[in-house]
Amino acid sequence: MVNLRLTPDEVATERNVILEERRSRVDNNPTALLDEQMNAALYLSHPYRIPVIGWASEMAGLSREDALRFYNHFYAPNNAILVVAGDVTPQEVKELAEKTYGKIPANSDVKQRMRVHEPPHLAERRLVLKHPRAGNASFHRYYMVPSYSTAEPGKAEALDLLAKILADGATSRLYKKLVVEEKVSATSGGSYSGSGLDSGTFSIYAVANEGANLEKVEALADAVLEDIRENGVTEAELERAKKSLRASYIYNSDSQESLARRYGWGLVVGRSISDVENWPEAISKVTNDDLKKAAREFLDDRRSVTGWLEPESPDGGSGSAEKPSVPSRS
Amino acid sequence: MVNLRLTPDEVATERNVILEERRSRVDNNPTALLDEQMNAALYLSHPYRIPVIGWASEMAGLSREDALRFYNHFYAPNNAILVVAGDVTPQEVKELAEKTYGKIPANSDVKQRMRVHEPPHLAERRLVLKHPRAGNASFHRYYMVPSYSTAEPGKAEALDLLAKILADGATSRLYKKLVVEEKVSATSGGSYSGSGLDSGTFSIYAVANEGANLEKVEALADAVLEDIRENGVTEAELERAKKSLRASYIYNSDSQESLARRYGWGLVVGRSISDVENWPEAISKVTNDDLKKAAREFLDDRRSVTGWLEPESPDGGSGSAEKPSVPSRS
Repeated sequence: MVNLRLTPDEVATERNVILEERRSRVDNNPTALLDEQMNAALYLSHPYRIPVIGWASEMAGLSREDALRFYNHFYAPNNAILVVAGDVTPQEVKELAEKTYGKIPANSDVKQRMRVHEPPHLAERRLVLKHPRAGNASFHRYYMVPSYSTAEPGKAEALDLLAKILADGATSRLYKKLVVEEKVSATSGGSYSGSGLDSGTFSIYAVANEGANLEKVEALADAVLEDIRENGVTEAELERAKKSLRASYIYNSDSQESLARRYGWGLVVGRSISDVENWPEAISKVTNDDLKKAAREFLDDRRSVTGWLEPESPDGGSGSAEKPSVPSRS
Repeated sequence: MVNLRLTPDEVATERNVILEERRSRVDNNPTALLDEQMNAALYLSHPYRIPVIGWASEMAGLSREDALRFYNHFYAPNNAILVVAGDVTPQEVKELAEKTYGKIPANSDVKQRMRVHEPPHLAERRLVLKHPRAGNASFHRYYMVPSYSTAEPGKAEALDLLAKILADGATSRLYKKLVVEEKVSATSGGSYSGSGLDSGTFSIYAVANEGANLEKVEALADAVLEDIRENGVTEAELERAKKSLRASYIYNSDSQESLARRYGWGLVVGRSISDVENWPEAISKVTNDDLKKAAREFLDDRRSVTGWLEPESPDGGSGSAEKPSVPSRS
């Protein structure tokens, strides 16, 4: 936590490592590129728009001084949460922590940080990324929604259940409609990311079958969303989703690492230990009506970005012979 | 420049003034709202995405301390350019400046600021704003392009001429096509803003006639752009545009204020006095081929945002009876 030795050589090497990581994980991956461009369009002002790994031009300019400034400012016992998972007692951990981290003085420069308030989202956004290695065309939609830290009680839990029912796996609404019934998609999915301090993201996607067009895929996905906004889900779906989320909570408790992360993450974003431990119970309490309300309130297209990833022939033309067209008013 | 007295009362009053200014100029003006949402989507990382007047929630939180911190940091003779226009000689101005501003010590905290490099734009963006007071539907397109500070020699001048020929007034390409020939638009326009330190914006717009649809308007505007990318403009158009820009330079020289602004702006963004004074000559040198190249290089849809402003009935439904549809692949 203190006294880090950082040589200029190590910094130069590590900077190349992260640049290479970016190249291989993002720049060579059309879906990751689309994700970055969509995130940048999802937030109007909030720094969540900036990819965690960074934009390449900024990464290239990072210096030893930048790293040390960050380290010296934020690595301090009064800005850290220590989580120990394993065959220990609280008393043992406390004594050891006091003997080690306890010796390090608090850094009084660490203050409550100013949080950026996202301005009102008034207009749904769309973007189209054409890429020679896009593979089958795909449709993606992100909604900016509350997180566990910002949602009113029960609403983040409703979003977790909604994501499960709407988009997770072969029994999900999206999969049944797009893949099984209408056969326009090869696969579909989605998730709710509710761990942000200032907001969360609700996302869905579908990969088009060879020859299927994205307009059709998107229209069908929108119909699935609209149906849930209007009619909610079935009791059977809700029960199955609750069971599945509670089960994954129990399974994850088997791993020391996920147990530690669960508490660490919760405390870092301002939740309490009982919030963390009562999550399965909070999930159980969500009603179909809560789900319908959450879908209506949060899956609001004005707070969304829709992205299309489409193949582009290597000569720069689009996959089809036609020019990308403009939105139709049908 | 120094010793500002700022009372808490003055700050409270002025904060209300700027909030009211924002309400009347932006929040009550659908086109200004669209402009804000488009700008926020045009830049992925650069602070040019933030409106100059600010987002309301951030303005509301500004304190006397924020204002004084800004003032004390940036208001310093080593961070200022003094421009005097009028019946004076350089010698007189120099003596007076030394006697007044010359007494104020330089602020050594003022350093070269880090400039944000905008990451690559890979995907054209679109957004739709529906507003009860939108009036006739309108189409807007912004391209992120170089500014006079960042463009290679002659290229900003080519963009100025391109904007003139493409979008300025009743003899422009857009107007002739959309308003006169095809009668889908009530009016059209556009401009090049090349005064930014890090980048510029090239914008066009067209207001749809009652009953005309925006898809048609946009397709026609795109055809006009594509024609210039492919074929450039006529010699007569180029000569007329050059004459018009040079004439406005001369007319503006008649006003002390615009003269002062011309030099002040140029020096602030790193241009030299001779750059400023040789602008009419630089305009004269642009060839039709330069224009065609600029259109091809800079009017690249991947670096653009397209915005549609559409009327919405007060009950929240869209003007037409139909749900906003998805882009078609025609």
